[in-house]
Amino acid sequence: MEIVLMDNLWVIIGTFLVLLMIGGFILLEAGSTRMKNAGHIAGKTIFTIGIGSLVFWAVGWGFIYGEGNWFIGLSDFFYGDTTFSEEGLSPAVDFMFQMMFSLIALTIAFGGFAERAKLSAYVIFAVLFSALVYPVVAHWIWGGGWLADHGKQDFAGSTVVHLTGAMAALAATMILKPRIGKYNKDGSSNELAGHNQVYTALAVLLLWVGWFGFNGASTFEVDGAFFGYVILNTQLAAAAGAIAAMLLVWAVTGKADVPTTLNGALAGLVAITASCGFVEPWAAVVIGAIGGLMVYGSMRLFDRARIDDPIFALSVHGTVGVWGTISTGFFATNELSVGMEWGLPGLLYGGGFEQLGVQILGVVASGAYAFIVSFIILKVMDKVMGLRVSEEEEIIGLDMSEHGSYGYPENIPTSTEQAK
Amino acid sequence: MEIVLMDNLWVIIGTFLVLLMIGGFILLEAGSTRMKNAGHIAGKTIFTIGIGSLVFWAVGWGFIYGEGNWFIGLSDFFYGDTTFSEEGLSPAVDFMFQMMFSLIALTIAFGGFAERAKLSAYVIFAVLFSALVYPVVAHWIWGGGWLADHGKQDFAGSTVVHLTGAMAALAATMILKPRIGKYNKDGSSNELAGHNQVYTALAVLLLWVGWFGFNGASTFEVDGAFFGYVILNTQLAAAAGAIAAMLLVWAVTGKADVPTTLNGALAGLVAITASCGFVEPWAAVVIGAIGGLMVYGSMRLFDRARIDDPIFALSVHGTVGVWGTISTGFFATNELSVGMEWGLPGLLYGGGFEQLGVQILGVVASGAYAFIVSFIILKVMDKVMGLRVSEEEEIIGLDMSEHGSYGYPENIPTSTEQAK
Amino acid sequence: MEIVLMDNLWVIIGTFLVLLMIGGFILLEAGSTRMKNAGHIAGKTIFTIGIGSLVFWAVGWGFIYGEGNWFIGLSDFFYGDTTFSEEGLSPAVDFMFQMMFSLIALTIAFGGFAERAKLSAYVIFAVLFSALVYPVVAHWIWGGGWLADHGKQDFAGSTVVHLTGAMAALAATMILKPRIGKYNKDGSSNELAGHNQVYTALAVLLLWVGWFGFNGASTFEVDGAFFGYVILNTQLAAAAGAIAAMLLVWAVTGKADVPTTLNGALAGLVAITASCGFVEPWAAVVIGAIGGLMVYGSMRLFDRARIDDPIFALSVHGTVGVWGTISTGFFATNELSVGMEWGLPGLLYGGGFEQLGVQILGVVASGAYAFIVSFIILKVMDKVMGLRVSEEEEIIGLDMSEHGSYGYPENIPTSTEQAK
Repeated sequence: MEIVLMDNLWVIIGTFLVLLMIGGFILLEAGSTRMKNAGHIAGKTIFTIGIGSLVFWAVGWGFIYGEGNWFIGLSDFFYGDTTFSEEGLSPAVDFMFQMMFSLIALTIAFGGFAERAKLSAYVIFAVLFSALVYPVVAHWIWGGGWLADHGKQDFAGSTVVHLTGAMAALAATMILKPRIGKYNKDGSSNELAGHNQVYTALAVLLLWVGWFGFNGASTFEVDGAFFGYVILNTQLAAAAGAIAAMLLVWAVTGKADVPTTLNGALAGLVAITASCGFVEPWAAVVIGAIGGLMVYGSMRLFDRARIDDPIFALSVHGTVGVWGTISTGFFATNELSVGMEWGLPGLLYGGGFEQLGVQILGVVASGAYAFIVSFIILKVMDKVMGLRVSEEEEIIGLDMSEHGSYGYPENIPTSTEQAK
Repeated sequence: MEIVLMDNLWVIIGTFLVLLMIGGFILLEAGSTRMKNAGHIAGKTIFTIGIGSLVFWAVGWGFIYGEGNWFIGLSDFFYGDTTFSEEGLSPAVDFMFQMMFSLIALTIAFGGFAERAKLSAYVIFAVLFSALVYPVVAHWIWGGGWLADHGKQDFAGSTVVHLTGAMAALAATMILKPRIGKYNKDGSSNELAGHNQVYTALAVLLLWVGWFGFNGASTFEVDGAFFGYVILNTQLAAAAGAIAAMLLVWAVTGKADVPTTLNGALAGLVAITASCGFVEPWAAVVIGAIGGLMVYGSMRLFDRARIDDPIFALSVHGTVGVWGTISTGFFATNELSVGMEWGLPGLLYGGGFEQLGVQILGVVASGAYAFIVSFIILKVMDKVMGLRVSEEEEIIGLDMSEHGSYGYPENIPTSTEQAK
Repeated sequence: MEIVLMDNLWVIIGTFLVLLMIGGFILLEAGSTRMKNAGHIAGKTIFTIGIGSLVFWAVGWGFIYGEGNWFIGLSDFFYGDTTFSEEGLSPAVDFMFQMMFSLIALTIAFGGFAERAKLSAYVIFAVLFSALVYPVVAHWIWGGGWLADHGKQDFAGSTVVHLTGAMAALAATMILKPRIGKYNKDGSSNELAGHNQVYTALAVLLLWVGWFGFNGASTFEVDGAFFGYVILNTQLAAAAGAIAAMLLVWAVTGKADVPTTLNGALAGLVAITASCGFVEPWAAVVIGAIGGLMVYGSMRLFDRARIDDPIFALSVHGTVGVWGTISTGFFATNELSVGMEWGLPGLLYGGGFEQLGVQILGVVASGAYAFIVSFIILKVMDKVMGLRVSEEEEIIGLDMSEHGSYGYPENIPTSTEQAK
């Protein structure tokens, strides 16, 4: 029984670390946007995770893990199973860890709303995403749904968490349209620079620490101290992503752009999330470095496509989330896939194209579901209530329009002048 | 023996998390006040926890847990018991966890000093509160004193930590009087807005994470992984508190005020602190939501009473600390009170009014002791040395008056202009 | 086997906490410098730890712990040992914890580069320090090298981590010369105040929390819950350091300077790092308090010697790192040195001068190696590529010169004016 208690201890520590990632997102989003919206962006994160928590309790857990069918679970709503198990994770511990993943996906999704969506849109979409979008994908892959039956590999959620959140963000950014001043009539774009790179750098560090729990505790047990191996891979991928992105942007533009470097580290983390338990350390370096290169390319491509993504959620969590998921199809070793009874080895380890195919299928199906359902929800919301604040409100900033006071009341007069 | 080591591991992890809460308070207090005082407010937190640590080591632990009587403990001063126990928590681990609670109470108390107390007042009150106020209440409830004999339920310290700190803050704010510019001659009040809502939102997140240790490790053991249940209740209450406060202020004022929303989350956390180990998840939602509603009402009432409480310590930790303590008298289940040999079930679970009465007695006695002793101490200090800085010092800011430099030297000229 | 898993769990928790310290350093360095360099300083921390991680993986670990000789290890490069051990720490867990120490030393070293070194200098020195400087000292003391054979006591790295980093910082600051505007022609110095004391106070808190892992997990096992004792000593020393430094600067200058107080807390932490497992609690208070007094004296001495050290790395990690290492020669108890089979008791516990001599030998040899090798590396780099940015670049700030955008784009015009 003592080993089981240690498993519980490990997973609850993972829960703490994943919640700490929300602190990272507060700083990442606030730092990547303008002063006039900073209080709004930071504050909405707190109440949206509040909403996400209650919805997950009410129906989210049940839709993922309840008794149901290949598509969705349908029991265990208003979760209150407080029995203590001697044979596995305590229900409450497992529940808390899973809730945190749902909250991370929700927070990623809101990246696509930044600096222009109404507060009421956050409130309603927080409910609907947490009830109808995330749990379905999570059920398919982790809750015994149809992708689980295919042996889809997603160790800690490149698909379930990152891609799902990013697809909702993509739907939002398409419907909301770009921010005022982002694109010129000739099609060229302006940089609406984030207001605080100390916030964003600290954000990356907090996310990095938190990711050790996100990936590490996805072992769900302490057996063999396998978490150490998962964390080693996570570290190497993050490091390689940061360096690759920095060197690329430095080579291309002559300046080692800070936001790109930071996104490189995050890209390394997102990329290794699916594969951290399946690959060797050298492969983690490769997977992370490719993630770092891709994130810069993706940021530029979205910008050229006039898709305005202030927090870079689409590139970091979407593009790289896809790469991460597919990477196990190349790099998963025999020992860590078949040996652990989770799918097949990748192309480079003699597994042929089969696992690669499953991974691609998983990405396409999950991504399509998350995008389409989010798009429909948001489109309906846009018709019924309007998603976007008025032009005037956007110019004065959402701190004032949605909350009635500036987040930086002593600084804002100057910066509002500049923003005009 | 291995289970005991796991207990120690769990409680030391809790210690880390509670210390992290101090980081939350640094940001909460600094962000809720003005730029000209920010360096002072952040910096004083570091040295006051230094003082609180040494005083707790010298006498605090001994007053709480030493051999003594119903009122106070009287042994184990200058604590140096470094033996290793095989039958329970290692003395050093237990000591560290308890020290952290003392530091949190002290930090809450200083909320009432904000933006107008002399530095020397912080130094001296840190010594006296940590020696004479906190340990006595803690002895009564946790150290085998008279309220413990009555079966007072306070799982992790709604009374011992939050109410005690808040009562000292109330005494301070009454003696110090409101800040310059807070109230007009006609009795109306002005908002002296805090300068950084990103700080305060991140603060709430750090406090939320830290509270998992505050409440969770108050199990003192890993048996049955009961900590998971405690943390589940904590999460639901915080979520409900944030949502309830936001919806209320939105409905009343038309704007979803960020500080109120954030205080709602904190109120949920404070409210559930007493009851997290005694109630069911649905009750945690109710307790947290009521806390969130109460905190907004309380903020308005104190403002109307011309009690100037910049950090909202009285509402968050005081008013809601009372509610949290009393709530177990309603919601404690039979299984988790009698079953765990800690008091009786609440009114709604057939326990009648007995436990409710004990809870009310505990609140009144503890609150009265903390308030009266703090008031006397501060009144004497005010006569002897003066608690408040001069009007001129208050206007230029405590960064300059008490420490000789601004916390934001490159920003302050503008903001000082505005502050005038 | 279960105890071994608990050991692994403990050390991986320590790894998380030490990585969190990097977040502390981001805030400490950014807050201690000017706004025009803030994005650069925060951002470079992320990519330099990326570089340090990959170099440690490639060669650092092998130089420290590989099979080799008295001077250096020479095997286990591109570390990929992913076996699981049932008899001790899992290789990956041990590797991750050790990597973090290397990253902390690197981050300390870069304190000496602040506000004037080229970005390319950071990139190249990150590689060379992580490969050639840190691993050699670490091998000598922790990897079975010649100082280990002498019974050198350095529980968690006052010498290996702090002094080594500080000596590299000293070499850098000597070669880079003071910042523009720091010293006048008459030899007097100007204060180039750091721009954000909320950052630096929060930094100290994050470092404090992280240090519990740094020192605590240096037990490498949970046996006897000895980590609690180590953490108790750590807490008392930090507290004493903060108070001692504040009272000293208050007495000398009449103002309780915030940066000095904060450095006092850090000095207490650095001082106790070598001795936390060897001394009694009362001695921890003394060691920390002396550290706090020394840091203020050291800050003044370096300033008078016209050594411009913006982050105070030389005083906090260098001067106090020496004191911490030597302190065990005075205060180590018989029970905790001989009893634990690690060196001899100190002078005050009847050990005579022998352990004191070993400690001094260790400091001199390690410090000399770190300084000389860093100096040579940096001198060659300076000749080949130049270490320092141009005068014009330094005036506009490294955010713009090295990265192409300001970290605070909405604030910077004002502050750049002021900086001129």
